[in-house]
Amino acid sequence: MSADKAFLQTLAAIVGAEHVLAPDADPARYLDDWRGLFHGRAQAVVLPGSTAEVAEVVRLAAEHGVPIVPQGGNTGLVGGSVPDKTGRAIVLSITRMNRVRSVDPDGNTLVLEAGATLEQVHAAAEAVDRHFPLSLASERRCTVGGNIGSNAGGLAVLAYGNMRDLVLGLEVVLPDGRIWNGLRTLRKDNTGYDLKHLFIGAEGTLGIVTAAALKLFPRIRSRATALAGVPSPEAALALFRRARAAAGPSLTAAEILPRFGLELASRHSGAPDPLRAPHAWYVLLELSSPVGPGLSTVMQAVLADAVLAGEAAEYVTTTEPKEAARLWTLRESMSDSQKLAGASIKHDVSVPVSDVPAFIHEAGLAALATLPGCRPVPFGHLGDGNIHFNITQPDGADGKDFLARWDEMNAAVHAVVKRFNGSIAAEHGIGRLKRDLLPDVKDPVELDLMRSMKRLLDPAGIMNPGIVLPVPDRASRTTP
Amino acid sequence: MSADKAFLQTLAAIVGAEHVLAPDADPARYLDDWRGLFHGRAQAVVLPGSTAEVAEVVRLAAEHGVPIVPQGGNTGLVGGSVPDKTGRAIVLSITRMNRVRSVDPDGNTLVLEAGATLEQVHAAAEAVDRHFPLSLASERRCTVGGNIGSNAGGLAVLAYGNMRDLVLGLEVVLPDGRIWNGLRTLRKDNTGYDLKHLFIGAEGTLGIVTAAALKLFPRIRSRATALAGVPSPEAALALFRRARAAAGPSLTAAEILPRFGLELASRHSGAPDPLRAPHAWYVLLELSSPVGPGLSTVMQAVLADAVLAGEAAEYVTTTEPKEAARLWTLRESMSDSQKLAGASIKHDVSVPVSDVPAFIHEAGLAALATLPGCRPVPFGHLGDGNIHFNITQPDGADGKDFLARWDEMNAAVHAVVKRFNGSIAAEHGIGRLKRDLLPDVKDPVELDLMRSMKRLLDPAGIMNPGIVLPVPDRASRTTP
Repeated sequence: MSADKAFLQTLAAIVGAEHVLAPDADPARYLDDWRGLFHGRAQAVVLPGSTAEVAEVVRLAAEHGVPIVPQGGNTGLVGGSVPDKTGRAIVLSITRMNRVRSVDPDGNTLVLEAGATLEQVHAAAEAVDRHFPLSLASERRCTVGGNIGSNAGGLAVLAYGNMRDLVLGLEVVLPDGRIWNGLRTLRKDNTGYDLKHLFIGAEGTLGIVTAAALKLFPRIRSRATALAGVPSPEAALALFRRARAAAGPSLTAAEILPRFGLELASRHSGAPDPLRAPHAWYVLLELSSPVGPGLSTVMQAVLADAVLAGEAAEYVTTTEPKEAARLWTLRESMSDSQKLAGASIKHDVSVPVSDVPAFIHEAGLAALATLPGCRPVPFGHLGDGNIHFNITQPDGADGKDFLARWDEMNAAVHAVVKRFNGSIAAEHGIGRLKRDLLPDVKDPVELDLMRSMKRLLDPAGIMNPGIVLPVPDRASRTTP
Repeated sequence: MSADKAFLQTLAAIVGAEHVLAPDADPARYLDDWRGLFHGRAQAVVLPGSTAEVAEVVRLAAEHGVPIVPQGGNTGLVGGSVPDKTGRAIVLSITRMNRVRSVDPDGNTLVLEAGATLEQVHAAAEAVDRHFPLSLASERRCTVGGNIGSNAGGLAVLAYGNMRDLVLGLEVVLPDGRIWNGLRTLRKDNTGYDLKHLFIGAEGTLGIVTAAALKLFPRIRSRATALAGVPSPEAALALFRRARAAAGPSLTAAEILPRFGLELASRHSGAPDPLRAPHAWYVLLELSSPVGPGLSTVMQAVLADAVLAGEAAEYVTTTEPKEAARLWTLRESMSDSQKLAGASIKHDVSVPVSDVPAFIHEAGLAALATLPGCRPVPFGHLGDGNIHFNITQPDGADGKDFLARWDEMNAAVHAVVKRFNGSIAAEHGIGRLKRDLLPDVKDPVELDLMRSMKRLLDPAGIMNPGIVLPVPDRASRTTP
């Protein structure tokens, strides 16, 4: 019996034979990344049913020097949850572990296993009349573990923060198989170093998150949504400022969309453009609150004043959920609908909020200088300074030729990001896709600290190797 | 010339002779802790004027194996900012470094040096019509660096979080003298491991925070404050729940006070008890908002309903700042005023919010079982589950005899904390005071990870040694 076969048999003994899948069982589900950029191979896909089983699997893999790729819903956008092409790794899917362990509506806390989908989290919160704010298009499939590993952002960051801000405690299986029980539900705890933040956003490279204690919030009871046509990114920022001043913490979303993106999204989704005239730019605003009504009045006042100030030309506003959903559809179709116009080169970047207009202009010029005729579609989270700076191919050009210029276009856009002290990976993470860009944008001391943390926690380098940081060569691995 | 003398001369060359103070220059300021529990000694007190000077001082100290005690306002409550008694250490006071580096009201960010006092932060925020929410009694003296090192809590955590939640980026001098520039002002940045959280709350044991990028918030424009007399901690919790449901994010404080504490605070501060009858317990509520009025109506409705429900017996409410300040004086005098009744044994603990009433009862019983006649004065941040479980000596007892039972009383109260999965150091930190209690309450894997982080970042053990973690003995220091 080969060593590999013995390894797989022991795996099966730990989790049950039916929970060790052959690598070719469902490659699209476990081995290909969501965007189709990476196609990995693996020895097996393992689905443990408990934290103890995860720990046993990790110990076994450590013993055999087998790399582990922790995986949730596999909806990541940077190739961080799929194995490389060597076929040496196992994929450890956390999706069978999806039980709610406890919920405390008074304390506003929810403890559950990391394989629960985001949709399940929303349901568990709603069952006790509470709200969990993280909101992503992939909520039916993405998992809490993946949300934590990638420090997911999404549509409610403006008011509630990133996933990092929604986590009170973690349970983690470390790369040596030890279990760290840091599942606290406390609002205040200053007993030493806060280790959970090291694992949040580490993309599975420092350990496997098996359970989490999350913050809940009062349920949203009223909501007002609006789409405004605005003349420029500067006007969009002014409108955002105005809405924040008038609505304070009730302003829960402020998204910017360009005309070209809105047209594509409308064609793609069938949701009509609700405004009478075309506008150069659009702002989607949402006010929401766990207490009484009155938001519609605030929204109307903000927009009427914005029109008087020349910040907006026209708007629609609604408190009717179906109408609001139609407005949101335009925003949510933004990325997928770009396919209608050909191939796209994408950037998930952030800059200080007040620099968004200048960034949009300068990055647009940089893209056009790189490839005349390309069509920038910058959209996204204005209030967070997080712009998805996507670029559609020139009209009628060859998609493959366009995509061949990915790195060149990245370099041009990221140079502008760097000038604004921004981030080249605002909410999607580094993964495999941006790994080799990191040394160009990161403080060398910080990069060195990151490498040190990786070596400290995962000296054998078996935990999601090649993600975030490159696999060190043999020589540098032996240095302390 | 002795080695020590050469060291001190080089120090003086780095920061200027006038910024190296003799150890006996002002011991109460630099060597004694705020509560008078610890009296340290030092070779010198050094006050660098820039990050580069801090780095040079650290490199020099590392070279000479001299321990460094980073110090801000020295207002900590657990002895974490004063040296031990050996006299080997230098105190590195950050207080000369207090400049604002940049402020961005649109982006709601403020970058400033770590020696700025909290009062200076408030002033810098107000100067651009913004709000910085951290609120501590020591704000005139405590510094941003100390607030970050201790992950300070205080009076606004319910709505805005701890200091950790208010930090966007850090500049840190590492124990080897390297400078990590992590001073980002971005709202979203997923480029690798989030290292800042390792330094926040580390009490100066992993490096010296020299500057920080902080979050600002819209300025508060309306406020309603109330004091209610309530029959029990259960009623207090019910009132808190009611206020949160009615006010949502406008509920910015919910503090609980016992009758005995209120009496002492009133005598001590001269602020009158504004209610007609005495009550077993009190709840201080604050609603505040950056937008329009209407909070008074909400507050009145909450309290009227609470009276009908039997949760409150009587209340006063005000929107007048001077009256509100008088109510807050009662809360803020709670700790100091205990001196009127003799010696106190203190605990800064937290439990899940819904367990606060049961915790107060059980910890009270545990204290009385330990010492019949002692007088528990549990008060504090009901909405955060953070109770300052202070215990006043029995009436007429000898203070010294009472304080001799500190450890025994700690053990009794902390055992109850542990039963509720709480924290024995909710907002003041571990410091020197609670260091040796840590192994009893911490997951062994977590403690081991903490030790590993310390060894990784500070292998020579020169950065605030003996704080949070014990100084390892020689044998264990050589193990990996």
